[in-house]
Amino acid sequence: MRFSEFALTTLKEVPADAEIVSHKLMLRAGLIRRLASGLFTWMPLGLRVLRKVEDVVREEMDRAGALELLMPAVQPAELWQESGRWDKYGPLLLRMQDRHNRDFCFGPTHEEVITDIARRELRSYKQLPVNYYQIQTKFRDEIRPRFGIMRAREFLMKDAYSFDADEDGMRRSYERMHAAYTAIFERLGLRFRIVDADSGEIGGSRSQEFHVLADSGEDAIAYCDDDDYASNIETAATAPPGGARPAPAQELEAFPTPGVKTIQQLCELLDITPDQTVKTLIVEGDDVPVALVLRGDHELNAVKAQKLDGVASPLTMAGDAAIREAIGAGAGSLGPVGMPLRVYIDHAVTALADFTCGANEDDLHYKGVNFGRDLDEPETVDIRNVVAGDPTPGGQGTLSIARGIEVGHIFQLGSKYSDSMGATVQDENGKNRSMQMGCYGIGISRIVGAAIEQNHDDDGIIWPAPLAPFDVVLVPINMHRSDDVREAAESLYAELSDAGLDVALDDRDARPGVKFADAELIGIPHRVVIGDRGLARGEFEYRHRRDSESRDLKREEVLELLTESAVSS
Amino acid sequence: MRFSEFALTTLKEVPADAEIVSHKLMLRAGLIRRLASGLFTWMPLGLRVLRKVEDVVREEMDRAGALELLMPAVQPAELWQESGRWDKYGPLLLRMQDRHNRDFCFGPTHEEVITDIARRELRSYKQLPVNYYQIQTKFRDEIRPRFGIMRAREFLMKDAYSFDADEDGMRRSYERMHAAYTAIFERLGLRFRIVDADSGEIGGSRSQEFHVLADSGEDAIAYCDDDDYASNIETAATAPPGGARPAPAQELEAFPTPGVKTIQQLCELLDITPDQTVKTLIVEGDDVPVALVLRGDHELNAVKAQKLDGVASPLTMAGDAAIREAIGAGAGSLGPVGMPLRVYIDHAVTALADFTCGANEDDLHYKGVNFGRDLDEPETVDIRNVVAGDPTPGGQGTLSIARGIEVGHIFQLGSKYSDSMGATVQDENGKNRSMQMGCYGIGISRIVGAAIEQNHDDDGIIWPAPLAPFDVVLVPINMHRSDDVREAAESLYAELSDAGLDVALDDRDARPGVKFADAELIGIPHRVVIGDRGLARGEFEYRHRRDSESRDLKREEVLELLTESAVSS
Repeated sequence: MRFSEFALTTLKEVPADAEIVSHKLMLRAGLIRRLASGLFTWMPLGLRVLRKVEDVVREEMDRAGALELLMPAVQPAELWQESGRWDKYGPLLLRMQDRHNRDFCFGPTHEEVITDIARRELRSYKQLPVNYYQIQTKFRDEIRPRFGIMRAREFLMKDAYSFDADEDGMRRSYERMHAAYTAIFERLGLRFRIVDADSGEIGGSRSQEFHVLADSGEDAIAYCDDDDYASNIETAATAPPGGARPAPAQELEAFPTPGVKTIQQLCELLDITPDQTVKTLIVEGDDVPVALVLRGDHELNAVKAQKLDGVASPLTMAGDAAIREAIGAGAGSLGPVGMPLRVYIDHAVTALADFTCGANEDDLHYKGVNFGRDLDEPETVDIRNVVAGDPTPGGQGTLSIARGIEVGHIFQLGSKYSDSMGATVQDENGKNRSMQMGCYGIGISRIVGAAIEQNHDDDGIIWPAPLAPFDVVLVPINMHRSDDVREAAESLYAELSDAGLDVALDDRDARPGVKFADAELIGIPHRVVIGDRGLARGEFEYRHRRDSESRDLKREEVLELLTESAVSS
Repeated sequence: MRFSEFALTTLKEVPADAEIVSHKLMLRAGLIRRLASGLFTWMPLGLRVLRKVEDVVREEMDRAGALELLMPAVQPAELWQESGRWDKYGPLLLRMQDRHNRDFCFGPTHEEVITDIARRELRSYKQLPVNYYQIQTKFRDEIRPRFGIMRAREFLMKDAYSFDADEDGMRRSYERMHAAYTAIFERLGLRFRIVDADSGEIGGSRSQEFHVLADSGEDAIAYCDDDDYASNIETAATAPPGGARPAPAQELEAFPTPGVKTIQQLCELLDITPDQTVKTLIVEGDDVPVALVLRGDHELNAVKAQKLDGVASPLTMAGDAAIREAIGAGAGSLGPVGMPLRVYIDHAVTALADFTCGANEDDLHYKGVNFGRDLDEPETVDIRNVVAGDPTPGGQGTLSIARGIEVGHIFQLGSKYSDSMGATVQDENGKNRSMQMGCYGIGISRIVGAAIEQNHDDDGIIWPAPLAPFDVVLVPINMHRSDDVREAAESLYAELSDAGLDVALDDRDARPGVKFADAELIGIPHRVVIGDRGLARGEFEYRHRRDSESRDLKREEVLELLTESAVSS
């Protein structure tokens, strides 16, 4: 591609509404342009990257025996009513009516449509397993779209759905997708982790997420390199602490704490650390509020807590008025001693002796609190986020925490949809059985953003080779004045293109500095500068995007280096 | 692809709601499945065909220097309000509101979005020409979706938009697309014609349509092989007849015609032919109705008539009451003599002498009517459809009429959108000028249906080679019992696949008759039957889908024939 014919428009300024680096760089490099909130056009440069992701995903899905089809974006409400999600899905679902006032939605996912297809097409266990997939445009009406294409409203997904005659088959289909996804992210050249995850609104029994590791990731991942354990922090389990609790050393004592509203203030007042305190959070319950008790330095885990008996889902903090009505004190002075509500105590709290907590009376706390004396020995639950240093569930090591961007998610759905929508096949004995389903998503467009979050520097994007819009950019110096430069550039352009490389020839009538800056911003892996001085020595100036310095190479060396990199990518 | 893993489901019955052969065959062969009215899933078999169309279109667009991008399906109302089409487009536009009650539509076309992109990205004539295209899902909320994917609501389009600094540039861009489209339809192996066309709601000055020829086509095409003329009948022009009109031979005579309402009844009563009569149609006008006069055997052309001064657009026939009020007679007895309304007379009528027409009084007609005597010499206009045998506008030959399916449409838009949306560039003198636009559509999904309308027989589809989902199907007989057959089939499958062919191996545990019927229904060009008897002779049974008989070929002959066909396609 000649840049003179590519309508490239890069921006020097950082767009005001872009919060994260991938969003900024995608706008600056001209990969995307904003149409409206959460709606983006993929410009020619960005689409080249998107298609590279798409191609790798398609190849690995095909290799795994999945069958590509293409379902409509617009879906009739009837199917969503059948599955029960028309009412449940809420305002994320973009709803519309056609000219005959029939209800439709712009599909955010396709479980209903594919289950409808499967119940018509698949009648016998002999036809199974089948795994249908598509690469298709979806819409989620996010309340606050942001981060560019990372949390856009319209986006490109690969979604796959497997159908099996029994649970063993479903698990085999799931493992095939696990392997295919691993191959995909490896081929894309991204550092990633596979983590255990919550199934959320999709439902089903088991699920795992694929995260691209990046400091800016929205998700926290708990992992242990010693025993392969990795989990989204949402679902990473904690175990009851081992070992014996210290014996009580202090008497229970109530003491005034005027103005103390936070654990930090409490610690400063008493010169103690947060892990010697417990905090009590009041959340809405099915009928009445519920108290959740954690060690002062720990964070509540909403996904775990909202599964507790009597706790409302999704988890909602109780309001000040409700707290005061139920307990007679405000949120700054609560504690488990004498708590009139149902109390859930986190595992970690059980290891504490002589701890400090609120006294359920405004401006009053207790210190020297001990289980078995001041309150009953607790039955504890797991309601906190793991932290670095926690033991792994297997006990072989300790956890580290990393940040990740979710780019893939695989689910064992079981018969959730096939039951509600009557998707059955005849088994060996002629009996109708619900098919066992799995579903498997990859955020095609999100991968582009995640790759940039993981691979960039101050000058711009640094594409992993398999994602780069061009493999190499040729930058001729004064091409419009020097025939030697023009001929050398054109000849290299032709030869590298013939070798199967995606070559950009920056033949724009622009200053070299502009061309260099654009090449770095766009993140093309290899750069070859062609100038009169180098040509006089028979040399080109080569630099890899990750190198700090360029080096001079003979023409054959350039060809060898680039064609080898093409083979290996 | 092994059919045992392809989840193929063909139907014997013709689906009840399918009216045309492509719709029937696409459902029967399992290319598509209906989700809701005008919404279809492309099943794996159908998607293979769709992708082949897509690939050819993409390659030729790229070769023509167009730049692929991808715009959102969902578009904000503001842009459509700016162009003035939000109100004009009517109920074909699927409108919706997001969670913040902002108006959006599911784009049926992208002139507004691309013009918005162009006015931001393109600032100088030096950046031009640019031609952006996309292959993308669109939605038109058809009042009566039918003919399967031929008139679906959700469909796949290739739409391109060119931007030039002046009209000459626009015409060059247009000609490039004309050439690219010609290459596309030639490569797809379809018989097609390029015809002059009306620009319709898109607007602009010049447009041409690409029609796949098929007897079932919705459009009529007038063409002449002698002078390359071809036009949609909507816009095919007629000329005033040459030569002198015969002198009057009869006196004007009014005669009673009780019960005569049609030209046919009139002709039977008088024993004359329709071309000796004229008919008078009353259409709604801007203020009052207007009379349109045609030869009795000719058809009114609505596209031409609605452009006449004083005639309402879109053309609407006047109601009985309005006719009676304006003329004092009913629709069966109207004529130009003494017509109290504004009258437009078609060119062809001017050649008539001694003709017959209504007398503007119920149950009364005139015969022996002559211009210059019974009514003024007319100024005539072109308001009829051409018919076979009409002279071409160039006069070099006579017209034939064919049926076609519109699969492509190219337009010279000029500055219609760039004016209303302020899409300007600086010209050489630093002045801002509206860009000159062209737009170019191809109905990717419709091509699949059109190809079937053109290529089928009683047994099923006959794919042109470039569109076939598989190049060849191997049908082993009793593969599950004969090791020889299995080995021969597997070996041929491997060798043909390695040669780059799309090979289907029908390894299903089904009767040969079922496999043969499916192969014909699906329309795979080449079929190779592998059986024990043939193998004993060292032969395979080969048949092309268009052949009536199969013939025996040696293995090398099969390989040679198929790999040659792969090279040539």
